[in-house]
Amino acid sequence: MYPDNSLVRDISRMQQSNYGREGFSHITVTGALAHGTKEVEVWLQTFGPGQRTPIHRHSCEEVFIVLKGKGTLLLGSSSLKYPGQPQEVPVFQNTTFSIPVNDPHQVKEKGCHLYAFLLCLIQ
Amino acid sequence: MYPDNSLVRDISRMQQSNYGREGFSHITVTGALAHGTKEVEVWLQTFGPGQRTPIHRHSCEEVFIVLKGKGTLLLGSSSLKYPGQPQEVPVFQNTTFSIPVNDPHQVKEKGCHLYAFLLCLIQ
Repeated sequence: MYPDNSLVRDISRMQQSNYGREGFSHITVTGALAHGTKEVEVWLQTFGPGQRTPIHRHSCEEVFIVLKGKGTLLLGSSSLKYPGQPQEVPVFQNTTFSIPVNDPHQVKEKGCHLYAFLLCLIQ
Repeated sequence: MYPDNSLVRDISRMQQSNYGREGFSHITVTGALAHGTKEVEVWLQTFGPGQRTPIHRHSCEEVFIVLKGKGTLLLGSSSLKYPGQPQEVPVFQNTTFSIPVNDPHQVKEKGCHLYAFLLCLIQ
């Protein structure tokens, strides 16, 4: 296995974790703790049948790039006083979307194992 | 074609530009001007035979994810008083590397058209 501090690292050999969630996989492709980046992290996550992120938000932008599979993005707005009804939009292979700072959001798998890069800033 | 302000955008339908460089292709997957992101940009670039980036540096971290092809990364260090000899490391499909802030670097295609995501922060 490539050591974490290699200049060039092979993603296919990186350690996966499911954090106790069946059908979920997380790889820290580029990370602050693992690789010393100071500004940006990149994750590769796979969501199996029925898997979803929690509804959550954070004070940095996040960009998703969907490599395979199908899913649904639910996106609320931080500019509303009350949550209201989130936008619900299908996502699929080769699509991208970005989550504005602090907007509540959730991503759900809807077929074929959703497989995506997630990029987010280090706080 | 999907309008640029769509919440979810299809990367395969995005406009490509070669900026006058034969064998080069650039797509702004997520950008400040095109899509209103405030913190991060994502580019998809293809380097044809013999194509290379200029030797350059910038005051933000940059992460490369190589999707296809082969190339060479040349990386100097901003911590040296003189440029010295850069590290020269092969890169290939499914590898990743990050460029520290201000470190001079160059990426060269070395076979099979180098096809990579580049992620960088907005200044």
